[in-house]
Amino acid sequence: MQHTVYSGQRLGLYFLEVGASLRPSKVVYDRANSSFANLDPAAFNWDEILKDAQWLHWTGITPAISAATAQATADAIAAARRLGITVSADVNYRRNLWQYGQTAQQVMTELVTGCDVVVCSENDAEDLFGIQPAPGADNKFASMGEQLIARFPQIKQVISTRRKTQSASHERIKGMLFDGSYTETPYLDITPVVDRIGGGDAFMGGFIYGSLHYATPAEALSFALAASALKHTIHGDVNLVTAAEVEHVMQGNTTGRLVR
Amino acid sequence: MQHTVYSGQRLGLYFLEVGASLRPSKVVYDRANSSFANLDPAAFNWDEILKDAQWLHWTGITPAISAATAQATADAIAAARRLGITVSADVNYRRNLWQYGQTAQQVMTELVTGCDVVVCSENDAEDLFGIQPAPGADNKFASMGEQLIARFPQIKQVISTRRKTQSASHERIKGMLFDGSYTETPYLDITPVVDRIGGGDAFMGGFIYGSLHYATPAEALSFALAASALKHTIHGDVNLVTAAEVEHVMQGNTTGRLVR
Amino acid sequence: MQHTVYSGQRLGLYFLEVGASLRPSKVVYDRANSSFANLDPAAFNWDEILKDAQWLHWTGITPAISAATAQATADAIAAARRLGITVSADVNYRRNLWQYGQTAQQVMTELVTGCDVVVCSENDAEDLFGIQPAPGADNKFASMGEQLIARFPQIKQVISTRRKTQSASHERIKGMLFDGSYTETPYLDITPVVDRIGGGDAFMGGFIYGSLHYATPAEALSFALAASALKHTIHGDVNLVTAAEVEHVMQGNTTGRLVR
Amino acid sequence: MQHTVYSGQRLGLYFLEVGASLRPSKVVYDRANSSFANLDPAAFNWDEILKDAQWLHWTGITPAISAATAQATADAIAAARRLGITVSADVNYRRNLWQYGQTAQQVMTELVTGCDVVVCSENDAEDLFGIQPAPGADNKFASMGEQLIARFPQIKQVISTRRKTQSASHERIKGMLFDGSYTETPYLDITPVVDRIGGGDAFMGGFIYGSLHYATPAEALSFALAASALKHTIHGDVNLVTAAEVEHVMQGNTTGRLVR
Amino acid sequence: MQHTVYSGQRLGLYFLEVGASLRPSKVVYDRANSSFANLDPAAFNWDEILKDAQWLHWTGITPAISAATAQATADAIAAARRLGITVSADVNYRRNLWQYGQTAQQVMTELVTGCDVVVCSENDAEDLFGIQPAPGADNKFASMGEQLIARFPQIKQVISTRRKTQSASHERIKGMLFDGSYTETPYLDITPVVDRIGGGDAFMGGFIYGSLHYATPAEALSFALAASALKHTIHGDVNLVTAAEVEHVMQGNTTGRLVR
Amino acid sequence: MQHTVYSGQRLGLYFLEVGASLRPSKVVYDRANSSFANLDPAAFNWDEILKDAQWLHWTGITPAISAATAQATADAIAAARRLGITVSADVNYRRNLWQYGQTAQQVMTELVTGCDVVVCSENDAEDLFGIQPAPGADNKFASMGEQLIARFPQIKQVISTRRKTQSASHERIKGMLFDGSYTETPYLDITPVVDRIGGGDAFMGGFIYGSLHYATPAEALSFALAASALKHTIHGDVNLVTAAEVEHVMQGNTTGRLVR
Repeated sequence: MQHTVYSGQRLGLYFLEVGASLRPSKVVYDRANSSFANLDPAAFNWDEILKDAQWLHWTGITPAISAATAQATADAIAAARRLGITVSADVNYRRNLWQYGQTAQQVMTELVTGCDVVVCSENDAEDLFGIQPAPGADNKFASMGEQLIARFPQIKQVISTRRKTQSASHERIKGMLFDGSYTETPYLDITPVVDRIGGGDAFMGGFIYGSLHYATPAEALSFALAASALKHTIHGDVNLVTAAEVEHVMQGNTTGRLVR
Repeated sequence: MQHTVYSGQRLGLYFLEVGASLRPSKVVYDRANSSFANLDPAAFNWDEILKDAQWLHWTGITPAISAATAQATADAIAAARRLGITVSADVNYRRNLWQYGQTAQQVMTELVTGCDVVVCSENDAEDLFGIQPAPGADNKFASMGEQLIARFPQIKQVISTRRKTQSASHERIKGMLFDGSYTETPYLDITPVVDRIGGGDAFMGGFIYGSLHYATPAEALSFALAASALKHTIHGDVNLVTAAEVEHVMQGNTTGRLVR
Repeated sequence: MQHTVYSGQRLGLYFLEVGASLRPSKVVYDRANSSFANLDPAAFNWDEILKDAQWLHWTGITPAISAATAQATADAIAAARRLGITVSADVNYRRNLWQYGQTAQQVMTELVTGCDVVVCSENDAEDLFGIQPAPGADNKFASMGEQLIARFPQIKQVISTRRKTQSASHERIKGMLFDGSYTETPYLDITPVVDRIGGGDAFMGGFIYGSLHYATPAEALSFALAASALKHTIHGDVNLVTAAEVEHVMQGNTTGRLVR
Repeated sequence: MQHTVYSGQRLGLYFLEVGASLRPSKVVYDRANSSFANLDPAAFNWDEILKDAQWLHWTGITPAISAATAQATADAIAAARRLGITVSADVNYRRNLWQYGQTAQQVMTELVTGCDVVVCSENDAEDLFGIQPAPGADNKFASMGEQLIARFPQIKQVISTRRKTQSASHERIKGMLFDGSYTETPYLDITPVVDRIGGGDAFMGGFIYGSLHYATPAEALSFALAASALKHTIHGDVNLVTAAEVEHVMQGNTTGRLVR
Repeated sequence: MQHTVYSGQRLGLYFLEVGASLRPSKVVYDRANSSFANLDPAAFNWDEILKDAQWLHWTGITPAISAATAQATADAIAAARRLGITVSADVNYRRNLWQYGQTAQQVMTELVTGCDVVVCSENDAEDLFGIQPAPGADNKFASMGEQLIARFPQIKQVISTRRKTQSASHERIKGMLFDGSYTETPYLDITPVVDRIGGGDAFMGGFIYGSLHYATPAEALSFALAASALKHTIHGDVNLVTAAEVEHVMQGNTTGRLVR
Repeated sequence: MQHTVYSGQRLGLYFLEVGASLRPSKVVYDRANSSFANLDPAAFNWDEILKDAQWLHWTGITPAISAATAQATADAIAAARRLGITVSADVNYRRNLWQYGQTAQQVMTELVTGCDVVVCSENDAEDLFGIQPAPGADNKFASMGEQLIARFPQIKQVISTRRKTQSASHERIKGMLFDGSYTETPYLDITPVVDRIGGGDAFMGGFIYGSLHYATPAEALSFALAASALKHTIHGDVNLVTAAEVEHVMQGNTTGRLVR
């Protein structure tokens, strides 16, 4: 908290209309001219901010908002590289952001160059980096991941969730990882979905925790998926679960039997 | 609003107990001696009321309540015919209404004679008009619709929903239309059902809107079904959706993926 | 109510965290030093209390809490036997209770000796009485029930539910009964589960009602299962349904169609 | 409960709009054609119903609704007199009831003739019985009470509350009693008023309890006022307090100091 | 609705923290760069918009937000003058608005020149127009009103409320009017205040209604004050009362006695 | 948080029934056998825990619960004395605690010996230390404070609130301080009281903050009273206000005027 910078006129907001079955949830953003959009990149001393950190994570939403936030992201990544800290990104491409004059393709290419771990779907890889799975590839995700690592040699792990949305109230998700070889988790069924907002952040947060606490990437991936699935069962965008509860699901306890 | 007539002692009420899974919802009506039951048919100048209208819709609940409401319905239909307005009816037969001395068969036969579009299921057609699908008919709805149009030459379109209730929380519905030839929509799955009260009115309202805005009856039917399905996901009996949201479902977006 | 005894310092409590899909519900008990745990068995005059009763029911939770509650249970059963009243038990074995120095095996063996009807799963039979289904038995429940009746000749009926938990929001349950021969009900699907707390008590309560009102054990079992299923659709641990509503489900009306 | 008679088509209802400060609460009644209005007086065997009772209480609302309810009231009072039971009435005159053809003056005169205890304000006494306080009387309530007892020799006690409504959120009330001599309580201040519906019934209920448990009418009156005042602090029309809590207020503890 | 113009990026918002007793309510505005702030004055054809209107009302908040909104206000007033429509203003001076480069003094002087009725307190008159009550004036409001009318000859009526805030939960308000001579209402006590947001708009709305429906300004003022007082008893910023309810308070029924 | 000790079987609970006007709030404690009651004093290394602290505060509830909690309190005070930290106590005498065999008089005398600042009312001083204001003393609090300081030479400041409870919904409170000479604040009126639980802790918390931030004890006292008053307007036992909001009240802004 001691590195928080206060400036600007207003907080960004978003409004959520909660969906059900075939009626989707809707998010309306109100971020125009928010304090975050108008931040001053020079106000952050990243070497100082990151000096005791183990890991830096950022998402593609941040550089999409303004030239200032893109610059601050680049500065943070550069400092992390200097300090030898692991850097991860959720590329999270949203076409209708990116209104400030630079293209997502150009900015994200530069930023991802400095990352060790990347959350990236096949769609995002095509839209941002023009990477398509090799024609006829059996495993499209692995094919994409291979090319992504070839293009960005700093990247060691490419991860993503595959989401089979049955309805606004029923999701099936699995985790996928490519780090030279391919690993995936089984699908988890989530029905009813209580609130899916925050499910992606829970996945990445789970992967960071898992990477720091488990011996293998497969375990980290499994922990990440279980964390994300549990988030779908909780109201709000904070994942109010303990590591023990995530591990309970990770070990295959997915029937929701009463615990007493 | 300027044609609303105020009279009588009390509003009709209904009480709803909301069901779940295998426990059905229940509706208890308290309409005895309501203002609507006791209305005076002579209080409505239908030629004046309808002079700028494009469409008149009524349901079989209205003439079921009292001789007075049946008379008012007949007067409204007669005026609509004089003015060349399209008339539609949801026949909506409920056996335990119709307590005032005239039979549903006799009254509805008279009223439906003046209608262009009719919502009618095979059960209703048999109960009200003694019409049964031809023995061995492949398509029972089309067979019934054909006979209904033969009997009532004013009718041009017979429509209905087919409802496969899986549980109080899971419905499957499709739309059907006979206008000389037969058209149907695919089934839509609705799970969970948030509130099914008002789903029939949303279907008919959607069909009227669709008939006035689309080139073909098949599109109108598809719009009607999507409107009805969306109503099942919203609390209350008012369909709080925009035409654009109905069209989104109508175009096949039924997985409830988050919109942002 | 006139036989209620008031004593002790505090009520026992339990805290419930409501689960959804793959996140289970959790129950945390706080019964240490509750009034019930510290009751005085001599404060109950069971011959007087039971003099107009038809049926005595108890559960394995009660003797698990303290020597005092175990003694009171034994006294109640003895009085019921003297008075010729039917005695039933839900054995409900919970390993982490039974902390007061006597074993569940010893105490429950003594208590069950005086019972006519017992709710007991295969797991409970093995844990409490060392009874295992005969190796290779087709019907494990029947095999267990047969041995249980052989061991405790007073027992005439062994019943249980089989629960296939699909998720915290989806249960499938059936009822099973052995009284010399084996009877079972079809499975009922419950989705969504609104609240499963109290489902076991609703089953036993339904079986007592059914035994007193129907000619055959199969009907009593069917009534018990329907009562339990309906409880899963209602918030709270009280089964707010009428006998007519249970019978409606018992007769196969499980699709939750709107009643009006 | 065993003497409850079930008949008719619908329950009466009332709708309450809760007021605050200078905006009054409003009650809208919907009792037309309710089961109570249409009851059959012959369905009640009052000698049987009252055979173990100590006290019969009725209010002026009941005979105001229909000739049938007036007859049932008269029958109950006659039975109570035969059995030597104390009879009390809250005359509760509401001009806009009494629509069925008999006057309140005539009916209430007959019914009050058989009462021992009557809740009656000066306004009610004038409207119903034409009794006005003697010109220049120091104590208008006592003057009215004296005349009421003179007119109806069966009456032994006339009681009432005096209500000084400061706002919809602030009431001051005292209790008054005339039984040959005059007694009153001090005023109690109630601010904020949480819900005043049921305050009159709590007063009368309190007076009955007080008369049966205390040596003097002044104590019964004091208990009645405290009970009514506490009702004003509780949501709903049921007085969810214990006799000990009423006595706490009755003993002058009206500052609402935290109890722990 | 047919004259509504849609443009811009976001709606303005405000956040309300509800106070109680000595803790005040707080309003935080988020209007920076809202659609309203950025409107195009040329988008409104005021002669067309106002052609069937009787009255134009605006408040000092509007010209305080941006040069564009100030221009639109001036245009609307000019059109109203051309069409002979009554114009009223609530000057509503808020120092911390007015950030766009012109002073409130200069802009409001120009706008008020075209008004017939003005809501203005002594503080606002001093801050905006440098008008102070004559030294030693008995009636400061009348003295201010006299000078305001002398300065702006179009003004015929100056009105205001005087608010004695006892606490966040207790207000006393009266209405004042100067139109050559001085009129005031008695104070109304409002306790508890349910929600004071919208009380000023309810006052002005009441004065417009009162001016159009009553013979004298004193009655219009009395109606306005009663409307404002009732608003304080209702949650939200919409005055959900009928004219009959306002008149009930206007006639002195301010004790909030239960209506039934 | 790093010094928190986890042990025992259950948390203590309390149940609160919220009062209004003349019906008091009620607190029922359920602390028997709680983890706190059964703590092990040796589990706390107070010299380590307090090594960076400026102030130690404890209340008389803690040593009232068990010999163990009394010992832990004594240990903490001794460590604070060794480290030169200011020690304050809210003596908070509750007769119906203190069930474990030592008297409040003996234990509190020992503990208070090590304190610099004490919250103590005249009643508490008499009950715990046998100190009565000098007969005929004009200022009873000052007289008590003088004797308390004489008896316990470590004490430098004796403070308290005086509470005039008008009703469960209306309190008047002032702050009093004796530190050789006497200081008091004016009374603050709090109506309506939203929730008075936590008002005492807010007072002491405010006094600690005030002592560390203001030059004079009178200012610290004024801050403490304002903090306590604001707590009475907020639901829950946490004082959700900023120091700036406390200072706003402290400067005399007690009318709750809308802030915008």
